[in-house]
Amino acid sequence: MYRMIGALLLSAGVALLTGPKLIAYLKKLHFGQTIYELGPAHQQKQGTPVMGGLMMAAGILVSSLAFHPARWSGGWDFIIPLLAVSFLNMCIGFADDYIKAVKKRHDGLSPWQKIAGQVIVAAGFSVYCYFCPAVGSSIRIPFAGTDWDLGIFYIPVMTLLGIFIVNSSNLQDGLDGLLGTVSAVGSSAWAVICLLLMLVPSLAGIADPDGVAVCGTFALATAGACVGFLRYNRYPAKTFMGDTGSMLLGGGAVATAMLLRLPVLLALIFFTPVMSSVSVILQRYYFKLTHGKRIFLMSPIHHHFEKKGYSETQIVSMYAGVTLILSLIAVLSILK
Amino acid sequence: MYRMIGALLLSAGVALLTGPKLIAYLKKLHFGQTIYELGPAHQQKQGTPVMGGLMMAAGILVSSLAFHPARWSGGWDFIIPLLAVSFLNMCIGFADDYIKAVKKRHDGLSPWQKIAGQVIVAAGFSVYCYFCPAVGSSIRIPFAGTDWDLGIFYIPVMTLLGIFIVNSSNLQDGLDGLLGTVSAVGSSAWAVICLLLMLVPSLAGIADPDGVAVCGTFALATAGACVGFLRYNRYPAKTFMGDTGSMLLGGGAVATAMLLRLPVLLALIFFTPVMSSVSVILQRYYFKLTHGKRIFLMSPIHHHFEKKGYSETQIVSMYAGVTLILSLIAVLSILK
Repeated sequence: MYRMIGALLLSAGVALLTGPKLIAYLKKLHFGQTIYELGPAHQQKQGTPVMGGLMMAAGILVSSLAFHPARWSGGWDFIIPLLAVSFLNMCIGFADDYIKAVKKRHDGLSPWQKIAGQVIVAAGFSVYCYFCPAVGSSIRIPFAGTDWDLGIFYIPVMTLLGIFIVNSSNLQDGLDGLLGTVSAVGSSAWAVICLLLMLVPSLAGIADPDGVAVCGTFALATAGACVGFLRYNRYPAKTFMGDTGSMLLGGGAVATAMLLRLPVLLALIFFTPVMSSVSVILQRYYFKLTHGKRIFLMSPIHHHFEKKGYSETQIVSMYAGVTLILSLIAVLSILK
Repeated sequence: MYRMIGALLLSAGVALLTGPKLIAYLKKLHFGQTIYELGPAHQQKQGTPVMGGLMMAAGILVSSLAFHPARWSGGWDFIIPLLAVSFLNMCIGFADDYIKAVKKRHDGLSPWQKIAGQVIVAAGFSVYCYFCPAVGSSIRIPFAGTDWDLGIFYIPVMTLLGIFIVNSSNLQDGLDGLLGTVSAVGSSAWAVICLLLMLVPSLAGIADPDGVAVCGTFALATAGACVGFLRYNRYPAKTFMGDTGSMLLGGGAVATAMLLRLPVLLALIFFTPVMSSVSVILQRYYFKLTHGKRIFLMSPIHHHFEKKGYSETQIVSMYAGVTLILSLIAVLSILK
C-alpha cells in the first residue's frame, strides 16, 4: 500500500518538478509545433512546445521502477513488457515530433514508418502475452464473468487492438488538457481494478497477483504523472504532450488491459479516444461514399464539438464526465 | 452490481433531463442570486439562477431509492439516516436560497438560524450513529488499521465535524463547476471504498455489509448526479447549485463517512472544501490579531487564486487533480 501511494506521489512530483525546466528547454530548441493541421482557430497556439509528454514519461519510469512491488522476486514478467510497450510506442511518437519540431520537416515520419513501428511493437507484445503463462490466449468477458479463449487468433486480434488504441490515443490529443484528463481518470480506474483483483484474484481469474500489483503501481504512476502534467497542459496550455505523450499513454493503457486479460474494458475506460478514431474513420468513408458529404463538421469529433460552439474547457469537462461514469461501470463490471 | 450501475446512470440521467426545465423554471421565478458577495469580478454572473442543486437532489433521491440494494430486508438503518442528513441540510440551504432569491431579502436566513438547523441535524445524526449497532462510538484509523473508541465524546466531536463539513462544502461553492467536480471525484472514491469493503468487510471492521452496499449506491448516485449537473454548471455556468446543492453534497459526504466509520478519510477526500473553510478561519483570525493584515488576497482560498490571475477553469482543474490524488490515497489507505 505504501509503495502504491509512493508511486502515485513520486510520479506527480517528478512531472511537476521537471515541468518548468523541460518547457524552457523545449522552447529554447524551438520545439514549437506547426499548428495549422491541429484544428479550428488554434493559430494562437503556434509556438507552444510539444513533447511535454516527456515529463510524464520521466514520472512513470522513475516511479514504476522505484516502487516496483515485487521486490526482485516476481512481477518482472509484467513490468518489463509494460514499460517496453509504453516506451517503444513513445519512441515512435518522439521520432515523429522530433522530425516535425526540430528538423522542421512538416511531414514527420511517413505513415508507413509509423504503422510499421506500431505493428512490430503490438505484434511482439501479443506474441509475448500469448506465451506468458500468467496471461495466455483467453480474455475475460466482464459482466458475463466468463473467459473467452481466442486461441491462435489472440495474436492478430490483439495486434490490431494495440495499433488501434495507440492511434486512438494519438487522435484524441488535440485540445488543451483533453487526453491528460481522460487518462488521469482512466488510469485511476485501472488502478482501482487492480486493487479489487489484488484483494480477490478469483474475480477475473488472475494467475499472478504480483503481476496485478505491478499493473496497479504502473496505473497509479500514470495517474499521478497525468495530474502533474495537467498543471502545464490545462487550458491555456504551456506545453503539449505531443505524439510522444499520447502514444505513451495509449501504449500503457492497452498493455495494462492485455496483461490483466481485460482488453474488453478498453471499450469503456478508453471509450472517448476510441470514439475519436471511429469518428475519423466514419468521416473518411462517408466522404468517399457520398463523394464529398461529411457527417461531422470536422473530425476527430472533439473538433466537431468545437465548431458547434463549445469551448475547449467545456469539451474537456464533458469528456472527463463521460470517462468517469464509464470507468465506474468498468470497475463495477468485474464484480459478479 | 447491475443495481449500482443502474443507480449511477439513472441519477446522471435524471439530472441531465430535469436540467433544462428546472433552469427555465428557476429563471422564470427570477431566482437570480445577487452576486456581489460571491467573489472578484463576477458581476456578469448576475441573473444566473441558483438552486440548480435541485436537479442533483432529484437524481440522488430517485436513484438511491429505486436501486436500494437491500430489497426491504436490511440496510434501511443506513439509507434513511443517509438521505435524512443530506436532505435536511439541503432544506436549510434551500430556505436560505429561497429567501435571498425569491423574496429578494439579501440577508437570507440569519447565521444563527442556519447554525441552529445544522446543529440539530448533526447532533441528531451523531446520536443515531452512537446507538446504531452497525456504527457505534469507535472510528477506524486508516493506515494504522486500528479502531479508536471515542466513547461518549463521539457525539460532540461528530456533531462539530458534521457542521464543519457542511459549511466547508458551502464555502467551496464559489466558482463554476468547482464543488461539482470535486464532489464527482470524491463520491467516486467513496463508491470505490464501499466496493472494497463489500468484497472484504474485515478491511475496516464493517458489521453491516448491506449498509455498505447502501452507502456505495448512494455514492454512485451522487457521482452520477454531479456529472449530470456539471453539464449545466461547468464554466460558463447556466445555473449554480446554491446552498441547496452544496449543503446536500456536504451532508451526504459526512453522513457516508460516519456510517462507514471512516470520518478520518474526509481529511483526504474532502480536503479541498476543508481547505476552503480553514482559509476563511485563518484569514479572519489573522485579520483580527494583526488589526487589518491579510494572509490571502481574498478568502475562501479559491478567490485568492483567482486574484493571483488563475482562471476559473484552471482552478477547477487544479482542485480536481488534488482531489483525485488524495482520493486515490484514501482508497489505498484502507488496505493494510
